[in-house]
Amino acid sequence: MSDNKQELRDLNLLFNARSVAIVGASTNPEKLGYEILNNLINMGYEGPIYPINPKADEILGLKAYPSLSDVGRPIDLIGVIIPGKFAPGVIEEAGKLGVKGAVVISGGFREIGNDDLESALVDAARLGGVGIIGPNCQGINYPANKLCISWPLIKQAGGLALISQSGTIAAALADRAEKEGIGISGLVALGNRCDIDESDLINFFGADPSTDVIAVYLEGIRDGEKFMEVGRRVAREKPVVVLKGGRTERGRKAAESHTRSIAGRGEIFDAALRKIGFEKVESIDALYDCAKVLAVEKKRPGRRVQVITSSGGSGIVAVDVLEELGLDVAPLSKGASARLTEVFPSHCVVGNPLDLTGDTPAERYKEAVLALAEEEPEIDLYLLIFGDPIPRATENCLELKKAIDRPIIACYIGGGEVEEVEFKKLNENKVPTFPTPERTARAARSILTG
Amino acid sequence: MSDNKQELRDLNLLFNARSVAIVGASTNPEKLGYEILNNLINMGYEGPIYPINPKADEILGLKAYPSLSDVGRPIDLIGVIIPGKFAPGVIEEAGKLGVKGAVVISGGFREIGNDDLESALVDAARLGGVGIIGPNCQGINYPANKLCISWPLIKQAGGLALISQSGTIAAALADRAEKEGIGISGLVALGNRCDIDESDLINFFGADPSTDVIAVYLEGIRDGEKFMEVGRRVAREKPVVVLKGGRTERGRKAAESHTRSIAGRGEIFDAALRKIGFEKVESIDALYDCAKVLAVEKKRPGRRVQVITSSGGSGIVAVDVLEELGLDVAPLSKGASARLTEVFPSHCVVGNPLDLTGDTPAERYKEAVLALAEEEPEIDLYLLIFGDPIPRATENCLELKKAIDRPIIACYIGGGEVEEVEFKKLNENKVPTFPTPERTARAARSILTG
Repeated sequence: MSDNKQELRDLNLLFNARSVAIVGASTNPEKLGYEILNNLINMGYEGPIYPINPKADEILGLKAYPSLSDVGRPIDLIGVIIPGKFAPGVIEEAGKLGVKGAVVISGGFREIGNDDLESALVDAARLGGVGIIGPNCQGINYPANKLCISWPLIKQAGGLALISQSGTIAAALADRAEKEGIGISGLVALGNRCDIDESDLINFFGADPSTDVIAVYLEGIRDGEKFMEVGRRVAREKPVVVLKGGRTERGRKAAESHTRSIAGRGEIFDAALRKIGFEKVESIDALYDCAKVLAVEKKRPGRRVQVITSSGGSGIVAVDVLEELGLDVAPLSKGASARLTEVFPSHCVVGNPLDLTGDTPAERYKEAVLALAEEEPEIDLYLLIFGDPIPRATENCLELKKAIDRPIIACYIGGGEVEEVEFKKLNENKVPTFPTPERTARAARSILTG
Repeated sequence: MSDNKQELRDLNLLFNARSVAIVGASTNPEKLGYEILNNLINMGYEGPIYPINPKADEILGLKAYPSLSDVGRPIDLIGVIIPGKFAPGVIEEAGKLGVKGAVVISGGFREIGNDDLESALVDAARLGGVGIIGPNCQGINYPANKLCISWPLIKQAGGLALISQSGTIAAALADRAEKEGIGISGLVALGNRCDIDESDLINFFGADPSTDVIAVYLEGIRDGEKFMEVGRRVAREKPVVVLKGGRTERGRKAAESHTRSIAGRGEIFDAALRKIGFEKVESIDALYDCAKVLAVEKKRPGRRVQVITSSGGSGIVAVDVLEELGLDVAPLSKGASARLTEVFPSHCVVGNPLDLTGDTPAERYKEAVLALAEEEPEIDLYLLIFGDPIPRATENCLELKKAIDRPIIACYIGGGEVEEVEFKKLNENKVPTFPTPERTARAARSILTG
């Protein structure tokens, strides 16, 4: 890919575009060109939006224009949803009009062997100074500018930036983030990444004030040197979590067909990530969970975890995984045991896990952590499991967060009404909360480096 | 535990009880004695229900009785939700009245060191011939008899029987099963299992016509010989999936505190399961997923998997995990490649994974499988990934299930409206469907033994 080697791009003008044209906006609700315009409008984008369609006067209440040149006003960014063969012409026109960026959703390029068409696209972009995301991609979403040129429509702003060679994986995780109340700071589906690449985007979100963590799905790195240089710098600022598709031989071959990535050998990739200081994960759930917890909690030394639970079985399952991951679920000291035994009802099982049993109110979790914070200062992280519909979990966790300087993460395992409300409320309020003890234990491992 | 060693119990009369008394039924909606009576009523239990409460004339529209003896009609089964110290007396009374079984939800026994009280309970049970589930448990649910003496209320009948030393884990999985539309055939929280144990229950659900698969969470085996004898027999009839809590040293100690189980060495437990022919899993998600797929698909020899996807990235992630699990994601033959290339649009990536790309209709999955069933008879399992909101996925999968004799399992990764509807519909219609490519790949491994 050395022919595509390039300098780091400044993407501020692209993501903070003050006007957008949608080339290929459609009046037909079945078409993507309709859905994307509709999403951009419903996102609440505040700049002018220009639908481009030679056959329509108006789309979704907006005046439509036959071409970009007919708009007659400045356009910062365009979305392109027309047949691929027309895309280079549009980019050429855009360049002449001073457009800064293009999100090319259209397919029909290198992914089906049309390398020449993709070269024409890149040439047009370079000539006119237009930065291209894509082609053959699921677009971008940037809530800080209420800019959604993508689908589905995800509106909730949060700290999670998603950069992905798979539009589906990015969209699925953005959807989760919205459902759980944590939201996203951005989403970029890279597609064929003919121009703007993962390094440019990691660089952008690394400096983006609304981004707390960057989650990346990659099948290969476009430019190793650039990736290392950007990576080292960004890793000092905020956490970057990476899932690599194509780590097996057959997976690697599939990756090469998918986005024509040079997937590269898994071990070299792993070594590069370690050197940079990125987090490497092995599954989509882990990509999400690790990003979710590192958006809120800084990594810290130590390995001692105290489990506090209302469900004995869930506590044991958590302990098994914590132990297997090399964390220390140390027993309580005599002093701490004595104090908790004195305070709590006799049916509570004092230890690690501390089993408050199924009838516990949320307040007892708080009392336990406050007592332990005094008696056992060596505890590095509290893992709270709510195994029953326990109201006020969030309020009590938030009071704890103010009172102690150790990470608190939670598991809300049930699926009832109280559980669903508290699960979302905890996540919204930056107490990272997971649906199973195993995933919560892995999140603990993402924080503790000892 | 040799003092408790006992013969296998016949639980038919207990689960098929024709009349139920709730000892400790309450008029106070905040109390468990109210919730359980309410759940039993709302489950639609068709036999007479007798609330027992000396201070009430009527509870939830039912005549209440001061004691079991005051009912004056036959009682098959009782639920017990009174302070533990009164439980032995109630069991004694029940025995005299010919009650066959008791679900003792009350705590206050061995779990807090009251071994004498538990012995008194067991003595009363043995004397009167009353089978006890519990004490200190979350009860039972048996939809075939519309019998729910537990919480939360799970009504949907299906093929999954849950037996668990953790009430929370059982309840959480039952709740999932209801939400996904697969339902349960039964749920039993073992609690302290002073009398009826996991072997009795595996034996019962092994013979139960509504049960297709048995999922078990255990912290220890009560009687090894009995477990092996029952296990060997049941494993020949239907799949049994087991998650063991306490597989690490600290987990084992926690398990001993939790249900006073002798958790035993992990390796011995594993060897026993292998010998019996039970499936061993390592996480709550895996317990659920493995049971879900084995409820529908028989294990079969072979290891060749064909992945068909609308999402390139998700397909690659699936291939990675399939390969790591030792399955064979073999490339297509020239003949099959040629045929699919001819039939499908040029932007589809023909191979394994077969990437139909994001605009594919559900029909194309069906066409692909039908063509491959002819061209590549050596494919053992089809793994279909729906990475986009693709309507009619279920209809097309059901037609395939009729047309070909290979397992079909699916992944529906997105969280939009179409995805949620199709995810549930697929599961309801016995096409086991999972939320991530990784979990789908693991389900494939649960079926293929080659």
